[in-house]
Amino acid sequence: MTIDYVHGYSELESRRLGDQANALAALLHGGTSYPAGSRVLEVGCGIGAQTAHLVASSPGARIVAVDVNEASLAQARDRVLATSPDAEVEWHCADLFELPFPDASFDHLFVCFVLEHLADPHRALVELRRLLRPGGTITAIEGDHGSVLFHPDSAHARAAIDCQVRLQALAGGDACTGRKLQPLLANAGYGGITVRARPVYADQNLPELVEGFTRNTFIAMVESVGDDALAAGLTTPDDWHRGVADLRRTAEAGGTFQYTFFKAVAVNGS
Amino acid sequence: MTIDYVHGYSELESRRLGDQANALAALLHGGTSYPAGSRVLEVGCGIGAQTAHLVASSPGARIVAVDVNEASLAQARDRVLATSPDAEVEWHCADLFELPFPDASFDHLFVCFVLEHLADPHRALVELRRLLRPGGTITAIEGDHGSVLFHPDSAHARAAIDCQVRLQALAGGDACTGRKLQPLLANAGYGGITVRARPVYADQNLPELVEGFTRNTFIAMVESVGDDALAAGLTTPDDWHRGVADLRRTAEAGGTFQYTFFKAVAVNGS
Repeated sequence: MTIDYVHGYSELESRRLGDQANALAALLHGGTSYPAGSRVLEVGCGIGAQTAHLVASSPGARIVAVDVNEASLAQARDRVLATSPDAEVEWHCADLFELPFPDASFDHLFVCFVLEHLADPHRALVELRRLLRPGGTITAIEGDHGSVLFHPDSAHARAAIDCQVRLQALAGGDACTGRKLQPLLANAGYGGITVRARPVYADQNLPELVEGFTRNTFIAMVESVGDDALAAGLTTPDDWHRGVADLRRTAEAGGTFQYTFFKAVAVNGS
Repeated sequence: MTIDYVHGYSELESRRLGDQANALAALLHGGTSYPAGSRVLEVGCGIGAQTAHLVASSPGARIVAVDVNEASLAQARDRVLATSPDAEVEWHCADLFELPFPDASFDHLFVCFVLEHLADPHRALVELRRLLRPGGTITAIEGDHGSVLFHPDSAHARAAIDCQVRLQALAGGDACTGRKLQPLLANAGYGGITVRARPVYADQNLPELVEGFTRNTFIAMVESVGDDALAAGLTTPDDWHRGVADLRRTAEAGGTFQYTFFKAVAVNGS
C-alpha cells in the first residue's frame, strides 16, 4: 500500500488546513516575524495555510514559497492573494531535495508540518542548511501525536488516532516528530537551537478552540484517514466508528482536549 | 495492598518535592499573586514546597496552610521560615474533609497536586467551596501522566511510568487528573472556569530543566515507587531497571522530555 501524503489533497482537507492555521495562528506563529528586506524561504508551503500568516506578520520580507504539488501551489497563491493582495510572494514548484536556489541565498527558512512527512528529515535539514547564509535561522514547527490527551479517555479513540500514526508511517513519515526537533537539528549541523512546547488546550469555555482545533482540525484530520485505515486493515468499521464517536465526545460539554506542538528555532552556525 | 500516599514521606522524596517546586515555580505559579490582607487557604500543603512560593509572591496575604500529616507540616514550617523568615503563615493539621473553618471564611483557595491523591475529588471540591466567600477564587494545579512524551521513546520506560499510575490508582488517586479539572470544577458548582496547559519541555539546551525537572523531579518520582511496584507485582526487576535506564536516556544529550501541567482558576459563583 502506497500513500504519498497521509492527509490527501481533497477540498475538505484544504478547508481543514485553513481552519487549523487560523485557529492556531497566534499560538504557532507568535514570535515569528522577519525584517523587511530579508530573504525568507518557506519550504513545503502546501495550500499556503501558513504562508498567509507569514506574509501578514512580516511585511516587506521577500518571501519565497516552494511546494512539490502544483495544485496546492495554485491554491496557496489564491489564498495569499485573497488575504494580502499587495504581498509579493515568489512561488516555485520544486522538490525539497532539488531546490533551484544558490548556496546561502536565504536569511531565514520556515518549515512547518513538513519534516513529519519525510522519510529522511535529516537529509532534508542538511540540504536546507546549504541554502541558508551563515548566521541565518531556520524555524521548524511540528506536532506530536504522542501528546494527544483527552477527557473522557477512550481506548477506541486512541486506536483511531493510532491509525493515522500508522498510515503516516506507511507513507514514510512520522507523526511524532515534534519531540525529535532538537536532535534532528543538532545532527544536521545547526547551532543555537531553542525548542519550545506550544500546547493547545480546549474545553467548553474555549469554544473557538473546540470548534477550530478539536473538531475542525484534529478530529477532522483523523476522520479523513478512515477509508485508508479500513483499506489497509488497520481497523474495522465498528471500531473506527466508535473511536471517532468517542473522539467527538471530547468536544462536547465536559470534554477536554489537549495537543502539543513544538516550535524550534536554530542558526546556521554555532 | 494499601498505599496511603503514592509518593511516600521519605527524606529523598522531600528533596524531590523541593526540587520540583523550584524548577517549576515560574511555570506553575506565574500569574498567581494574592492581594495584601486577603485570606488565602492552601489545602494539602505537604512539606510546604509550594507554600514557600505562595508566600514569596503574595506579600501581606494572610496565608493559612493545612495538611493532614503532622511531620510534613513541621517540615513546611521550617521551609517557609528558612525562605521567608518574616512571613506569618497559620498552620493547621487537619483532614481536608473536616477543615476547622467557618463557611465563607476565605477569599482564595490554593490546591496544588492534591486532587490527584483523593478517592473523591468531587466531594473535596464541593466541601472546599463552602469555605470560599461568594466571588472568591480557587486555583487548582495538577499534572497528567498521560501527557508524558520523550525521545528516545521506549515501551519499557512507558511501562515504568505506568507502574506509578497504577500504584496511585491502587491508593485511590488518579495520576491523570489534569485533563479533568474543568469538568471537576464545573460539577462541583464553580463558575468562570479557566484551565490552561503549562508544559515543561527539556532538552540539553535547557540544562536546568533537565536536571531540576526531568531527572530530579520526574525520573526521581518514578524511581521512588520501584519497591512498591515490584512488591505489587506490577513489574519485574529486569523490566523495571530497563525502564528506568531508558527514562534516564531522555535526560542525556540528544534526549528530550515533555510533561504538561494544568492550571485552573474558578470562582465561587457564576
